[in-house]
Amino acid sequence: LSLSRAEAKNLKALYTKKGRRLAGRFVAEGVRLLEEAERHGVLPVHAYWAPALVSERGAELIERFRKSRVPLTQLSAAELARIAGTEMSQGIVAVFATPAKSGEPDVFSGRNVLLCENISDPGNLGTLLRSALAFDFDPVILIGACAEPFSPKVVRASAGAIFGVNVFEATAGQAVVQAVKSGLTLIASGAKGTTDMDQILSDNSSSGLMLAIGSEAEGLSADIMNVADKVVRIGHTDRVESLNAAIAGSILMKACYDRKSLR
Amino acid sequence: LSLSRAEAKNLKALYTKKGRRLAGRFVAEGVRLLEEAERHGVLPVHAYWAPALVSERGAELIERFRKSRVPLTQLSAAELARIAGTEMSQGIVAVFATPAKSGEPDVFSGRNVLLCENISDPGNLGTLLRSALAFDFDPVILIGACAEPFSPKVVRASAGAIFGVNVFEATAGQAVVQAVKSGLTLIASGAKGTTDMDQILSDNSSSGLMLAIGSEAEGLSADIMNVADKVVRIGHTDRVESLNAAIAGSILMKACYDRKSLR
Repeated sequence: LSLSRAEAKNLKALYTKKGRRLAGRFVAEGVRLLEEAERHGVLPVHAYWAPALVSERGAELIERFRKSRVPLTQLSAAELARIAGTEMSQGIVAVFATPAKSGEPDVFSGRNVLLCENISDPGNLGTLLRSALAFDFDPVILIGACAEPFSPKVVRASAGAIFGVNVFEATAGQAVVQAVKSGLTLIASGAKGTTDMDQILSDNSSSGLMLAIGSEAEGLSADIMNVADKVVRIGHTDRVESLNAAIAGSILMKACYDRKSLR
Repeated sequence: LSLSRAEAKNLKALYTKKGRRLAGRFVAEGVRLLEEAERHGVLPVHAYWAPALVSERGAELIERFRKSRVPLTQLSAAELARIAGTEMSQGIVAVFATPAKSGEPDVFSGRNVLLCENISDPGNLGTLLRSALAFDFDPVILIGACAEPFSPKVVRASAGAIFGVNVFEATAGQAVVQAVKSGLTLIASGAKGTTDMDQILSDNSSSGLMLAIGSEAEGLSADIMNVADKVVRIGHTDRVESLNAAIAGSILMKACYDRKSLR
């Protein structure tokens, strides 16, 4: 019923970027999030829980973890509170192995792929991962200075999608080569776009798309803009300068998903 | 070149909900955000700035404030840092008068109105305000336990839309009465929806819509669901349980905007 000093230190380290990288592990907290992991067939390598803090639903989750032979450590409420990153842990903190997915991904012919460049806000990146899974964009490739996909904020904003979608970190060059190899049409989203998504989708009935979303402040880099097959613009009033990056990406992914469903 | 103790205290109070309510004032920081306020014709009642911290673009903004007779107080970088809520102030903190907009709004025949219920996450609420302005939903009515629209987090997430869109706080009952009085079709967004947005839009060619978005965890309350004209569902894969509330709202508003543009 207690945590050694060393164990507590290792666990706390997973709330830092360096600690996650060194350990090859990340953390997720809260019943809903862990149920989503379960739904995607991903089990933690270890779970810490405080009986006094868990709901009935949380206790059932722990029971399923036990049956699946997930190593469990029972803690006091005070001990768990010292570890947990947020007040939203609901009495459970679980440790997961980080999937090794950097470098050049495989070939993805016929699939829709989301390319995120410099999406540095963890909330926006997590939301884009969630929408990607919702609208059948998989994998998601991260280039430039994106938020770290396994940080607690991204994991939470993804609402568990991080456990379902394949995420790769790559360079712009690798991503572009990938689009070419896989025969994907590279679509850049940008304020200077001239084509609307419906037009692109009716021109592109068979092959998959690689949809590139840049940061709100800067847009996509020349690395991507110069080689994009089309630049798409989302029509809106002139009462705002631009849309939120996660909103723009999600609206475009939804349009692709609807079109694909019709075929 | 300095701030009295009392003035500093009053300014700090605007970073609390109680302080904002008592003073009828709120704060916004950063050059882009204040430029958006300007674009919507909204000037601060007072601005505090530190010459050492402002960019050229920031200095130009201060110059325009000066010409518009906005009261300005010049501070040292250290003084400004002590006041500012974030490191993103870029050397300017501006104080605005909160528009008085609670209670029953006027009649909005033919307009599209966004109804937000229990959108407690400030990032989601701010993003919804931004998309509302982008897709011509105005006003936005807040019911239930929404985030406070003039809190610094909502103001920032709105990317300045808070200065352009009309926001009302009301009860569910007032909002529903409003929909009826204004002849608006009340559309609820929900996982149990049966109709898709295209269908609703083709059935509803003339009158405006009141589009209701609820919290992700709970959805819309019975107050709204029981009286909604239609419940709309956004199609997605079953690999996620639901969409982020700001994403769902924005996708639906965009669909309405596109349809309206066609007419």
